[in-house]
Amino acid sequence: MQKIQRLFAIDPWKIKTNELNRENRRLQESLTSIGNGYMGMRGNFEETYSDDHHQGTYLAGIWFPDKTRVGWWKNGYPEYFGKVINAVDFLQMKIFVNQIEVDLAKIDFSEFDLSLDMRNGLLTRSFVSEIAGATVRFNFKRFLSITKLELAVIKVDFEILAGEAEVKIISKLDNQVHNEDSNYDEMFWLEKNRGSEENISYLTAETIPNPFGVDQFSITAAMKHHTTVSGRLAEAPMEVSETFNYHLKENQTASLEKRVVIVTSRDIPEDQQVTTAVKLVEAYDLSFEDLLAEQTAAWENRWQLADVKIEGDDEAQQGIRFNLFQLFSTYYGEDERLNIGPKGFTGEKYGGATYWDTEAYAVPMYLALAKPEVTKNLLKYRHNQLPQAHHNARQQGLKGALYPMVTFTGIECHNEWEITFEEIHRNGAVAHAIYNYANYTGDEAYLKKEGLEVLTEISRFWADRVHFSKRQGKYMIHGVTGPNEYENNINNNWYTNYLARWILNYTLKTYQKYQTSTTVTISNEELVHWQEIIDLMYLPEDQELGIFVQHDTFLDKDLMPAKDLSPEDLPLNQNWSWDKILRSCFIKQADVLQGIYFFNDQFSKEEKQQNFDFYEPMTVHESSLSASVHAVLAAELGMEEKSMEMYQRTARLDLDNYNNDTEDGLHITSMTGSWLAIVQGFAQMKTYQEELSFAPFLPKNWQSYAFHINYRGRLIAVSVNANEVIFKLESGEPLSITLYDETFTLTDILKKQIH
Amino acid sequence: MQKIQRLFAIDPWKIKTNELNRENRRLQESLTSIGNGYMGMRGNFEETYSDDHHQGTYLAGIWFPDKTRVGWWKNGYPEYFGKVINAVDFLQMKIFVNQIEVDLAKIDFSEFDLSLDMRNGLLTRSFVSEIAGATVRFNFKRFLSITKLELAVIKVDFEILAGEAEVKIISKLDNQVHNEDSNYDEMFWLEKNRGSEENISYLTAETIPNPFGVDQFSITAAMKHHTTVSGRLAEAPMEVSETFNYHLKENQTASLEKRVVIVTSRDIPEDQQVTTAVKLVEAYDLSFEDLLAEQTAAWENRWQLADVKIEGDDEAQQGIRFNLFQLFSTYYGEDERLNIGPKGFTGEKYGGATYWDTEAYAVPMYLALAKPEVTKNLLKYRHNQLPQAHHNARQQGLKGALYPMVTFTGIECHNEWEITFEEIHRNGAVAHAIYNYANYTGDEAYLKKEGLEVLTEISRFWADRVHFSKRQGKYMIHGVTGPNEYENNINNNWYTNYLARWILNYTLKTYQKYQTSTTVTISNEELVHWQEIIDLMYLPEDQELGIFVQHDTFLDKDLMPAKDLSPEDLPLNQNWSWDKILRSCFIKQADVLQGIYFFNDQFSKEEKQQNFDFYEPMTVHESSLSASVHAVLAAELGMEEKSMEMYQRTARLDLDNYNNDTEDGLHITSMTGSWLAIVQGFAQMKTYQEELSFAPFLPKNWQSYAFHINYRGRLIAVSVNANEVIFKLESGEPLSITLYDETFTLTDILKKQIH
Repeated sequence: MQKIQRLFAIDPWKIKTNELNRENRRLQESLTSIGNGYMGMRGNFEETYSDDHHQGTYLAGIWFPDKTRVGWWKNGYPEYFGKVINAVDFLQMKIFVNQIEVDLAKIDFSEFDLSLDMRNGLLTRSFVSEIAGATVRFNFKRFLSITKLELAVIKVDFEILAGEAEVKIISKLDNQVHNEDSNYDEMFWLEKNRGSEENISYLTAETIPNPFGVDQFSITAAMKHHTTVSGRLAEAPMEVSETFNYHLKENQTASLEKRVVIVTSRDIPEDQQVTTAVKLVEAYDLSFEDLLAEQTAAWENRWQLADVKIEGDDEAQQGIRFNLFQLFSTYYGEDERLNIGPKGFTGEKYGGATYWDTEAYAVPMYLALAKPEVTKNLLKYRHNQLPQAHHNARQQGLKGALYPMVTFTGIECHNEWEITFEEIHRNGAVAHAIYNYANYTGDEAYLKKEGLEVLTEISRFWADRVHFSKRQGKYMIHGVTGPNEYENNINNNWYTNYLARWILNYTLKTYQKYQTSTTVTISNEELVHWQEIIDLMYLPEDQELGIFVQHDTFLDKDLMPAKDLSPEDLPLNQNWSWDKILRSCFIKQADVLQGIYFFNDQFSKEEKQQNFDFYEPMTVHESSLSASVHAVLAAELGMEEKSMEMYQRTARLDLDNYNNDTEDGLHITSMTGSWLAIVQGFAQMKTYQEELSFAPFLPKNWQSYAFHINYRGRLIAVSVNANEVIFKLESGEPLSITLYDETFTLTDILKKQIH
Repeated sequence: MQKIQRLFAIDPWKIKTNELNRENRRLQESLTSIGNGYMGMRGNFEETYSDDHHQGTYLAGIWFPDKTRVGWWKNGYPEYFGKVINAVDFLQMKIFVNQIEVDLAKIDFSEFDLSLDMRNGLLTRSFVSEIAGATVRFNFKRFLSITKLELAVIKVDFEILAGEAEVKIISKLDNQVHNEDSNYDEMFWLEKNRGSEENISYLTAETIPNPFGVDQFSITAAMKHHTTVSGRLAEAPMEVSETFNYHLKENQTASLEKRVVIVTSRDIPEDQQVTTAVKLVEAYDLSFEDLLAEQTAAWENRWQLADVKIEGDDEAQQGIRFNLFQLFSTYYGEDERLNIGPKGFTGEKYGGATYWDTEAYAVPMYLALAKPEVTKNLLKYRHNQLPQAHHNARQQGLKGALYPMVTFTGIECHNEWEITFEEIHRNGAVAHAIYNYANYTGDEAYLKKEGLEVLTEISRFWADRVHFSKRQGKYMIHGVTGPNEYENNINNNWYTNYLARWILNYTLKTYQKYQTSTTVTISNEELVHWQEIIDLMYLPEDQELGIFVQHDTFLDKDLMPAKDLSPEDLPLNQNWSWDKILRSCFIKQADVLQGIYFFNDQFSKEEKQQNFDFYEPMTVHESSLSASVHAVLAAELGMEEKSMEMYQRTARLDLDNYNNDTEDGLHITSMTGSWLAIVQGFAQMKTYQEELSFAPFLPKNWQSYAFHINYRGRLIAVSVNANEVIFKLESGEPLSITLYDETFTLTDILKKQIH
């Protein structure tokens, strides 16, 4: 049985607990992270906390190229690894009561309460402590504004319940921050400026120089306080602070509100940052209540469109809301220069800001939950990086374009040969997203211009990367790592080969369709060569087992189901040596099944069933990307129990810490999984061949579920209960939908019996 | 055509040049390295040289565990990488003429002469320079004593050819030395003591602490000078120095001789080091001429036994002498705690002191060129490390013993998963050396005790490492790297599978033979299981091609001969990205052919020929271990031209810088290759089944070649000329030898016609 670890109570809208879990404080911090797409932070405490934790504040698009350091250099390795860097700690408020510092690792306290409200992104915390003769209640509130992106609002209220107290608060902007995983333990920041203007103090810092020609970033933080006493400004290298002293008697209360504005050189040149930040602090100077009301209203708008309502299962409900909340806190499509990093603003592990997860897992959800422009921005991001993708292919001595595994700029910065050089199926996900976007939106203009430009260069890469095996008379792809990263350097990964063939074919067909109206040119010789590769691509299959074979020698392994593993072996990646994992049959995430998920309309039900029955039992789902694909396929195959198990796993991956690694940060890019599981899985929404269809079932124990989708200019509400499937066209022109293989025209409301 | 780079003149006994090659100074330094098995140094200059070069002095068995730093941690990685560390620079003599520093990178000079005499290990250098009005000739001489291992002798003579000069020499012991490749750019040494006693100054240093529980080393260097003026002692952190001033007029000469003694905590506790070193300086205080005479006599003894004399080809002659000279400078079997590191005392790349090269390439030569005890010491080294080999297997979750890829202590310290975890055939070479030793010497006592202990634990590793493929009904070995390191993580490497099967079989047969007289116990269940593996081991073959297949999918590659590569692609490892190398068919070193070389008596001539003809043309010989095996097999197959090409490549690998990497140091462990090529190749010496046989040919252009071998208590001189093969029994009892399939008894001299 899978071990889970649940630190927070079940609640449909909240992440809450009454326990400070000191042993798992990092996990608590990850799960109470907040963000607004522009910046974000882990759920750190405002006041000092001296026990194990991980202080982390991150700013979108601000990073550092850390010199590649590997045991053994291989030709082709990138010069640097792009790291998400820990930025100015603006949360900090050191608190002293009668000269004793408030530090929950050191003082006794009671009535602890920690709660993140997903309705509006408000994080609150309170506790009572008796310190040096005074009993004090503290209440903290904070949020990052989603309407004023540069703004953070932090408030602490305190009340003397007994005794008398001198309360001192030192509120800081502190840029003396490190990454936990930097090479050489480097500090990535240099101070550029600090000072104050009329109660607003500021601090400007710049990332240190690098030898790779990557631009340095500068950032300015400015803060202003609202309270009943006046503060005392102070400065020190890399920090500015303001100190407040309160003399309070029994039953007296006070509060301190801290407003912080952050601007960066991504938008504002360094020499204008202080002026801009100070102006913004003033422009954003509404009351706490007004700011919070605006925040709540803006989140309400998001939820109106995006919320998935589940009746009868609060665990499931909390899971999907947590995922949507964290996803939108990371990316809401407002800035085409950005993408969706693996940890969002919740940690600094992995680095980079862009993985294939975006195209494979996020695009389908953003297509349905946001305007087409949001997805188009994600696609443009890759189109803008086509020159860098050329560079990456050249690094391997190959033609065309290779999109990177990990990047900030489009230049590959990952440094494991088996991933950097071999996990090239990522280059297929980028092409698939173009297909997905064009098919979902019908945007031909994009497809024939930017889309085809990218597709052509990706195809040129694949046409050069295959080789012809004279012995087999087939084109093959050797030396790859498939989606299952528990095998490396394999030959003829079915998924990769299938994907490569599909890309060549899709590019060729798209080119032929738009040949007279596109600016892209593909030579006849190339087209003929591509067609030959398409015709002769080797795709390993086993007739006897009736399956597609993961790669050439997979069936020679010692095959056994994952249920035969003992619990102490799991997760394998924390308990087995790497070579043992590689030799084993156990699969980290969907591989053949990833292909069947992507190209679902190209396989028979029998093929799907046989491959699912063969591969899923050997799958340990230790990638956050695994469960959702299996949930969708299991649902299609009528395997409700398996589908629900997979839904739980994707929806509550972080909340229940399934893979025992959420302390490093949330698995942001896979958070679309629970939405995919419900919409593409339980409701069986499909959009192949530009047709919208559904075939919902209602999971056992659920009373109902409901969601909205955007589709080609329509907003459609879908709800499913024990008896009916109900479609409501909330805006847009009537359209035809297929339900359980019957086609209807949706004009207003359509109610049909559930099958 | 293969590019070569030759910096030194052809000479049968010398490595000499009249050119200071500033662009290739590192290569010059590597090629003029000297050592005495106890310590050694690159061919650095005594005086300052400010252009690119690599200062390096190394002490046998003195190393540091440098924290493993990899891009991405894999479970099972070792905590540290053992580095050969740069030790006290005792060579240093800064020289000033009329206040101008002598630095060949900055001053003009003429009559440059650099020469290493391989007869006795004396390195000499001279030049003339006009500096600030004085024309001075400098002559340097140095050697490391092979009879007084702690002793280094360095001498500089200088003569004023014109003008008048103040010559100042500052002679130092300087421990402020770095490794070029240390993590964190750490200095590995701390000063412990420094001072002087009656003209002998000394310096004690200790390696810095480490968190891995590895013992720190301390070393003491002591120096004394002989000259006509008295010196001025000085100290500074990490150094002691003595300054000498000479006032010389035209035609006057002077000389300064520096004697250095080094002792280490491997032999002498730190608190006794100074006393011991000082005593040794005094005890070794003979004249330069006497010390050199002793050195020359001792080397002469070595050469008498080991020299291979070639008439008619000075290139070939110089090559083999250079290899033997450098090998003996690295290891002469005097200390069972030592082994043969990949760069000896000529560089610090790779780290570690023990590779499988020792067992596979060095053991056969030491068996023939030294007393059996020398080889036995190499075997004991592994036997002593059996507990660590257990640890290494446990790191991978496997039973039995796994000898490391790279080590100082027996604990694996390499950190690439595809090597550390996968290049496990090294564990076969260790077993093969036991067979080789027992078969060559007939030492049954060793075989049934220590030998069988090691064999049994190695067999237990293999029995656990195989898996049974139900589909094929065969035992397989997945996820290995074979000797051809240009492929990684392959399945069923023919060499590895064959070797594993052979080991199980040899262990089983040896156990059965000595069952009643050995202390080793193997359960019946194990024996049955081993037999099943032996019977059902999968060995990939291709009937049609008549070859053993390198690994499962090798034949699916795009197969082409290496001669079709363009010269700018070579060496591949410096010009192609790693993934491109891996996907290609090009082979770094003998792989299937390594197996045929090891188990030569188990294959038919036809099998040998077919496999050679298939694999050799795809082999790029970019491992220093490649050419010798091919030379031996080509000789056996009558392919004289190929055999000679391979001989040249192995014999002159460093002298002609074939792989463009000798600047980092010499390829010490592969230096037995030229001896193997001549003795096992041209002379076709074989010892299978405890029978000694030969089948010599004389390479075209050679007039003759001659060598000695030790075999079971006999010393035999073998010489081959255009007409005859001559055997002379120089000591020991008569024995039977087979020549060209005819068997004779050798009692004194035997002359036979050459075939």
